[in-house]
Amino acid sequence: MSTPVAALSPADLLAHWQGHRRLTRRVIEAFPAESLHQFSVGGMRPFATLASEMLAIAVPMLREIVSGEAASYSEVVPASKAELLAAWDAATAELDAWFAKVPPDKFAETMTVFGQFTGPVWSHFAYAIDNEVHHRAQGYVYLRALGIEPPAFWQRD
Amino acid sequence: MSTPVAALSPADLLAHWQGHRRLTRRVIEAFPAESLHQFSVGGMRPFATLASEMLAIAVPMLREIVSGEAASYSEVVPASKAELLAAWDAATAELDAWFAKVPPDKFAETMTVFGQFTGPVWSHFAYAIDNEVHHRAQGYVYLRALGIEPPAFWQRD
Repeated sequence: MSTPVAALSPADLLAHWQGHRRLTRRVIEAFPAESLHQFSVGGMRPFATLASEMLAIAVPMLREIVSGEAASYSEVVPASKAELLAAWDAATAELDAWFAKVPPDKFAETMTVFGQFTGPVWSHFAYAIDNEVHHRAQGYVYLRALGIEPPAFWQRD
Repeated sequence: MSTPVAALSPADLLAHWQGHRRLTRRVIEAFPAESLHQFSVGGMRPFATLASEMLAIAVPMLREIVSGEAASYSEVVPASKAELLAAWDAATAELDAWFAKVPPDKFAETMTVFGQFTGPVWSHFAYAIDNEVHHRAQGYVYLRALGIEPPAFWQRD
């Protein structure tokens, strides 16, 4: 198999994802505790639930990609802001550890995750990141509607 | 220079971007004409303005990456929904044409675009895509607040 030309390397992809996750963490922090679990616009889910969806995807999906063992989707919403932030930080470390175990030729392989989503492995990572950016942006609107200035979109450190 | 391992190839990256752009086009289409240029939540910009920001980034940035000629940021909001969709479609074709001219070893090069954003070329593409996903998601909230079901997030064809 020839080595494909890289637009992004695996290390670039992980760094990009973790940069987004640092920003999402700041968005969680920006919410007043009660609004995090209750406030929404247009009948959508509160931001604590959206962030819990991100957690339900990230580590379980990556673990399935590395181990080949079927992941089940299980969304648990931590009861408080502090517990959500703690779950977020635990996932940050787990992502680093599992990502290091993805074989370099795995990214172009086609694979089904969560028993239903089939595509090249890179597209599953892209989906997890895009889904996080998508739902985090809804959190930006919630914050604006609450009169709170959201964190700068471009800041990822 | 050794060939880096690919998480995504240039072709993957372009296909991913154009998939997002097809979805954004459907979001533009989902807005009633008057709401597209006027409706917003929390004092944010209407979706026509957000979509115009995406247009002001995409082709000019890619042209600068290929040609090396400095791009200036110039946001023009098309006056009607039909004109916005026409500008969107013109950019789709231009992106395909310019992207094909990006040399394979360009993605890892560090470059400044729009006279102020410095990073590897892949990160500029990632930023353009992320920015589109971010602002499009705000459009999703606007649509929900208008009582309109937005297009499915996962559909990219």
